[in-house]
Amino acid sequence: MPAAFPFVERVRFEGPESRNPFSFRHYDPDAVVDGKPMRDHLRFAACYWHTMRNGLGDPFGMPTALMPWDDGTDALSNCLHRADAFFEFLEKCSIDRFCFHDRDIAPEMGTLRESNAMLDRVAEHFAQRMQASGKKLLWGTACLFAHPRYMAGAGTSPDVRVFAHACAQVKHAMEVTHRLGGDGYVFWGGREGYSSLLNRDMPRDLGHMARLLQMAVDWKSELGFRGALFIEPKPREPSVHQYDFDSATVLGFLREHGLIGKVTLNIETNHATLAAHDMEHELRVAAAAGALGSIDANMGTPNCGWDTDQYPTDYALATRVMEVVLATGGFTNGGLNFDAKRRRESWRPEDLFHGHIAGMDAFAFGLKAAAALRADGRISAALRARYSSWDGDLGRRIEQGGASFNELERAVIDEQVGPPASGAQERLEDTWNAVVWDGRARR
Amino acid sequence: MPAAFPFVERVRFEGPESRNPFSFRHYDPDAVVDGKPMRDHLRFAACYWHTMRNGLGDPFGMPTALMPWDDGTDALSNCLHRADAFFEFLEKCSIDRFCFHDRDIAPEMGTLRESNAMLDRVAEHFAQRMQASGKKLLWGTACLFAHPRYMAGAGTSPDVRVFAHACAQVKHAMEVTHRLGGDGYVFWGGREGYSSLLNRDMPRDLGHMARLLQMAVDWKSELGFRGALFIEPKPREPSVHQYDFDSATVLGFLREHGLIGKVTLNIETNHATLAAHDMEHELRVAAAAGALGSIDANMGTPNCGWDTDQYPTDYALATRVMEVVLATGGFTNGGLNFDAKRRRESWRPEDLFHGHIAGMDAFAFGLKAAAALRADGRISAALRARYSSWDGDLGRRIEQGGASFNELERAVIDEQVGPPASGAQERLEDTWNAVVWDGRARR
Amino acid sequence: MPAAFPFVERVRFEGPESRNPFSFRHYDPDAVVDGKPMRDHLRFAACYWHTMRNGLGDPFGMPTALMPWDDGTDALSNCLHRADAFFEFLEKCSIDRFCFHDRDIAPEMGTLRESNAMLDRVAEHFAQRMQASGKKLLWGTACLFAHPRYMAGAGTSPDVRVFAHACAQVKHAMEVTHRLGGDGYVFWGGREGYSSLLNRDMPRDLGHMARLLQMAVDWKSELGFRGALFIEPKPREPSVHQYDFDSATVLGFLREHGLIGKVTLNIETNHATLAAHDMEHELRVAAAAGALGSIDANMGTPNCGWDTDQYPTDYALATRVMEVVLATGGFTNGGLNFDAKRRRESWRPEDLFHGHIAGMDAFAFGLKAAAALRADGRISAALRARYSSWDGDLGRRIEQGGASFNELERAVIDEQVGPPASGAQERLEDTWNAVVWDGRARR
Amino acid sequence: MPAAFPFVERVRFEGPESRNPFSFRHYDPDAVVDGKPMRDHLRFAACYWHTMRNGLGDPFGMPTALMPWDDGTDALSNCLHRADAFFEFLEKCSIDRFCFHDRDIAPEMGTLRESNAMLDRVAEHFAQRMQASGKKLLWGTACLFAHPRYMAGAGTSPDVRVFAHACAQVKHAMEVTHRLGGDGYVFWGGREGYSSLLNRDMPRDLGHMARLLQMAVDWKSELGFRGALFIEPKPREPSVHQYDFDSATVLGFLREHGLIGKVTLNIETNHATLAAHDMEHELRVAAAAGALGSIDANMGTPNCGWDTDQYPTDYALATRVMEVVLATGGFTNGGLNFDAKRRRESWRPEDLFHGHIAGMDAFAFGLKAAAALRADGRISAALRARYSSWDGDLGRRIEQGGASFNELERAVIDEQVGPPASGAQERLEDTWNAVVWDGRARR
Repeated sequence: MPAAFPFVERVRFEGPESRNPFSFRHYDPDAVVDGKPMRDHLRFAACYWHTMRNGLGDPFGMPTALMPWDDGTDALSNCLHRADAFFEFLEKCSIDRFCFHDRDIAPEMGTLRESNAMLDRVAEHFAQRMQASGKKLLWGTACLFAHPRYMAGAGTSPDVRVFAHACAQVKHAMEVTHRLGGDGYVFWGGREGYSSLLNRDMPRDLGHMARLLQMAVDWKSELGFRGALFIEPKPREPSVHQYDFDSATVLGFLREHGLIGKVTLNIETNHATLAAHDMEHELRVAAAAGALGSIDANMGTPNCGWDTDQYPTDYALATRVMEVVLATGGFTNGGLNFDAKRRRESWRPEDLFHGHIAGMDAFAFGLKAAAALRADGRISAALRARYSSWDGDLGRRIEQGGASFNELERAVIDEQVGPPASGAQERLEDTWNAVVWDGRARR
Repeated sequence: MPAAFPFVERVRFEGPESRNPFSFRHYDPDAVVDGKPMRDHLRFAACYWHTMRNGLGDPFGMPTALMPWDDGTDALSNCLHRADAFFEFLEKCSIDRFCFHDRDIAPEMGTLRESNAMLDRVAEHFAQRMQASGKKLLWGTACLFAHPRYMAGAGTSPDVRVFAHACAQVKHAMEVTHRLGGDGYVFWGGREGYSSLLNRDMPRDLGHMARLLQMAVDWKSELGFRGALFIEPKPREPSVHQYDFDSATVLGFLREHGLIGKVTLNIETNHATLAAHDMEHELRVAAAAGALGSIDANMGTPNCGWDTDQYPTDYALATRVMEVVLATGGFTNGGLNFDAKRRRESWRPEDLFHGHIAGMDAFAFGLKAAAALRADGRISAALRARYSSWDGDLGRRIEQGGASFNELERAVIDEQVGPPASGAQERLEDTWNAVVWDGRARR
Repeated sequence: MPAAFPFVERVRFEGPESRNPFSFRHYDPDAVVDGKPMRDHLRFAACYWHTMRNGLGDPFGMPTALMPWDDGTDALSNCLHRADAFFEFLEKCSIDRFCFHDRDIAPEMGTLRESNAMLDRVAEHFAQRMQASGKKLLWGTACLFAHPRYMAGAGTSPDVRVFAHACAQVKHAMEVTHRLGGDGYVFWGGREGYSSLLNRDMPRDLGHMARLLQMAVDWKSELGFRGALFIEPKPREPSVHQYDFDSATVLGFLREHGLIGKVTLNIETNHATLAAHDMEHELRVAAAAGALGSIDANMGTPNCGWDTDQYPTDYALATRVMEVVLATGGFTNGGLNFDAKRRRESWRPEDLFHGHIAGMDAFAFGLKAAAALRADGRISAALRARYSSWDGDLGRRIEQGGASFNELERAVIDEQVGPPASGAQERLEDTWNAVVWDGRARR
Repeated sequence: MPAAFPFVERVRFEGPESRNPFSFRHYDPDAVVDGKPMRDHLRFAACYWHTMRNGLGDPFGMPTALMPWDDGTDALSNCLHRADAFFEFLEKCSIDRFCFHDRDIAPEMGTLRESNAMLDRVAEHFAQRMQASGKKLLWGTACLFAHPRYMAGAGTSPDVRVFAHACAQVKHAMEVTHRLGGDGYVFWGGREGYSSLLNRDMPRDLGHMARLLQMAVDWKSELGFRGALFIEPKPREPSVHQYDFDSATVLGFLREHGLIGKVTLNIETNHATLAAHDMEHELRVAAAAGALGSIDANMGTPNCGWDTDQYPTDYALATRVMEVVLATGGFTNGGLNFDAKRRRESWRPEDLFHGHIAGMDAFAFGLKAAAALRADGRISAALRARYSSWDGDLGRRIEQGGASFNELERAVIDEQVGPPASGAQERLEDTWNAVVWDGRARR
């Protein structure tokens, strides 16, 4: 079989001055930042769905992508060829990991038993290619949203047999993920929500979803799978309201159903912005709960109310993301999965490379800049100073639960209290710019 | 003292055909709907801040409201005259209840001790007027957002003394609320959030907020206050992100900090829409957690990203709200507080009446229409039918936690599963219209 | 060929009390409102694309719609069967008109010549069915967004040959529309916009678009087509920014390029809300320019940033739309086209009827309510009174261009000016409710 | 009188490595970029309203700003002291220009005659300080939104006397602007819009607004004022819809009323984003019409639906703005006015400096980066290549209006047309990053 991407050998680090569009200006996989090679900080993954299965159709138009390696069928042989092209891509683009849905890599057949058998055959091929190439699986997942049976939800379907089917499909997708040595397994519930409140029983839906997750936790244990389980929040699309709206909503749900600590979050930039948050907010909410699991690295176009899933080419955004990642001590089971697709006009195979390269360089820059911000220390020092009054006796007692309204009233009733120190946001933004844009971070 | 509102005697029910703008077409306080007088279903309250203290200034312009009863000073005598005008308004507008902030009814003085003393004197006057008129307090609250000391938060201030001041202020506001027989006490944390993540320690802030609430729970018990404690979610404004973003976020926070069941929610329509939800969604989320406490009845203008706090004159919206209220069995401590203000151009005292009348009639209509929807039963029957497969053996076992992936896989692995029954949303919307717009509800 | 919709005979008016889901409660085609039968006021059309060609797939899922009359192929025979089912639908649903895209009714072939031939054959069949049934064409259009060649625009393509192809396709679609007696021809430019400003020349694009429209105006004249040309504004989707953003933008473009008066607007509710306007605003902007041509009647879900194209089942919205339509004297060439689709869960053929019935009844109600508002006259009287000072000498002279700053300064320099009369918005909203919800309109 | 800002001498350029928070890292006023000193490219202005008159109150809270130089009164002496503090600020912050509203610098008095007299006295003081310092007036304007008389609009007031008052006020503000040598005069119509369509006559309003502008054009001529007239678009706030919604809307309005070419645009970043556009889009729309007049340089917080007016500290945003400015040949009468305010927590006088410094450095960086992008040329070359087919015979003929549908049909009817060349957006974004983030621009 001829190369799928004959126009490129291998994308390598050539430094900031490089004008070779098939090179990295920042991502130098083995270069050490803060005591760890870049590749281990960033744990980049390509996703199978956008990279191999997205023909770039949209609700108003047909596919445009040129994919000469793919004959467009669901035949096993085509599934295997496609996988080969994918591993060629990973190799040439210097990406160490990947993610997949069960139905991305192998088709849905007449029954689940047949679908499982097909999936197993393709997965066996993946295992061989992984073995040969050293590429790893970041996470796997089951597609519980494309088939018509899931039109009204999978874990929240009003039809109990659809729910059962979803569970069975997850069971097998978890097995395959485990077999391929995945570091995690993701739940994204695009259909777990509603189109209208007129025909949904929200509390019952949420109870069902919790049951599915609890059974997954049990199955993970039975299976001996040691990877992480992740939920991916998104506020809406395709549903009008998705129950996993944002990080705070998912964490509340996990707490309510005794799942906190058992399931963590896979947070996507474009989902954060669709929920009217910014990505840094979502990451910090998850981090505060010890639940920042993994990241779907992409970005959206402001003002577009749907998931544009663009490559994350914004260096400032990547820096903010990596600040939180470094603050939590870095990824354990998670990584940076490029859940991103080319624009529909970027129909050449070359564009697959340009998107990933731009994204990888953004995050490599972001890693260096975030490390520089930590080393610089001015911003964190300002933060500590701002809260320093809480480090005294009164503050500690309050934080430990030892104070009462009576005591606090006595402390202030005859005092002039306030104002607090200036927030100095403008100065801090300037300091951030100084370190990130002007500093030595990126060199 | 002359009447503040000499242009009106008393607003009374005159029926749907009335063309008298100072009459109710739907609100007939003692008319019985579903076994209870309208007034007890709706528990209307006027708020002191918008009704008496909002001069209708905005960030771009000066006050416009004509308030001849108010001399514009903070003198005690003016505070008392203002209160008199308010009770005249409640009486003439047939509103049974009210809500207030401590600093609405009495001014901030040099120290908290002095402010408390002033507040107590005004509250004594309120007590007398309540006694004389039979008007009741729905809820009270403390203003923890207007004074400069709270610029960076009250319960989440980076300055521990500001936090202590907030606690002391809440303590006294709870006392006054208790003294006036309030049914509830509300926490709205407009400054409990951030302008920038650069200068905030989010986990520490949230921990502090939880401490304040726990102390309030303790104080409620010490005080013997039997009303409810409510948190009012809002996503932003004046903060760029408010920690109490929406119902789900607040419920998750309460669960995390052991406050669930001790604090319930006061949900505002315009806050729901600012959080990119609709009001019915927010109410249902709260109701599912048994935490629907009270409602701030207003509405916003779609596409306006700030709190326009309009009078809730939309009959369809009021119907959706009342559907959830009836489904939960009605208010216990809560009610419908018109947290609404006139448009800045509606500067005449008459407009205060027109806004409340329009809102009260909308909710009276909504109550009748919601009761009619329940009586009609077509929509709830469709919902039950849609979920009926869950009522069988398999469904019950799953719901009770007795099923596993293995069992569910066996059930479906050789089956064709799906699709579920049609959601029939269009037909249900038509049925809703038939009952609400065309039915006998409004007669 | 068996009936496509055997479950229904014909949907007829049965009055507000009807519980038959296949009846109209408000739409009584020959009932006269304000001197004209309802059918002539409303000029309802069904659209071929959603009704016949939308399988209800979405970006995350496969089609769900059950369409037993369609064999899923592009064969001519299937195109004709599909058309037969459509005319059966129009007949049974009592809809007088329809709209179509060239590629809805006949497939794209290898060359434009072949596509045109295919289109002509299918159109001939349509002509026969129209003749037999009395159904009429509201408007036709060309699909300039689905084929990959149009990925970067049609009238604004950076490739001149793509532009030429678009022109040629429009030419033939206009011919077919003319041949079928269409009242109008629509331009919707979903790809006439950008994904990024980095790779677009905006002024050049707009110049090209204007050329295409001018050639269409010329062709209309050559063809002898007496229908209207309409542009349909939309802010984005599938593009990130569509040049025809909203009514005001399109009107400005038409003025700039000498096309005002030659092209008018087809305004869609869901597009209005995506542009952060409300529908009434968009209609009034167009009406003020004498450019309100036609309406795509649907609605969206608030907070959803994509075109949900729901059936317009909101009676209040329909009333507001019909108020503007009546104020302009009613439709000339335009009408109410249901550019609406069922929810993906509403997969039964029955749901096609329920959606249209709910929408038609909403607009029939809206027509009656709008007429009642005009007859009531309170709101328009208040409006006239508010502006009455402009009817004096000074106002007239200013409006006629006869005043200057010097004169106006003299008039006010020593005067106390303001405030204007109260806007009384709350009272007007109450009056609107009284007429629309409580009035006799709906009887 | 003591210095208002004793903590700083003068902010000077110290280069990217500087850690002095009262220095510029990029703004080196006399350094030459593309043949012109930075100061002449950027034409920075501070605004009087936010810098001197914004106490940082908001709808939920009192002012917080510490302004020891201001006694809080409307006395003439205080007006003059305040002006002195402002000129000290301009000098120390190295800002060459300023902007003002009439009512910022002098108070509203009992009649317009008295207000004018007061304004004249303060303006005389400004003239002296300008003379002494060399500071210049970028533009002046009249405040037509704060006084209650303007509650329902100024140029669009339903009350003709309010309209006349607005005209008279504009007349005098233009005179004062002219007297102070202003380069421009701005119209911002925050109240020229509506709260509700129930009580507005939109076409009549727009006609009145056009009359006001035409009289201003006439008055400019009579006065001999040679500066520019600018309209500043904004979609809403304080109005629910402002008639000057965005650039395209304003341009359409100007065209309709024969004002195009006589009035150009002053575009504000935060207004662009409130209108669901990005700033670059708005600038390009104006530039395409030859109507990019001036810029209000600030930024908003994404997802906040009100005008946060933050200092424009985003280097990427500043670069995009400066790309358009350089592409149009630079400012003529316009400049970069910091219509920005400190966060409410940034209450120290120092924060006024930090905000401006951060903003000035961002734009100085942006200027250098934009110049570097032009010098690099890769992106513009890609753009030219993408449109190159239009440079051939066919393209030229179409652009010149010499083609017809018939001709174009002949050209393509038997051809395979499309797809166009890849848009390569991802690669272009990477190139942009390479030049802006990694290039030598910032050194």
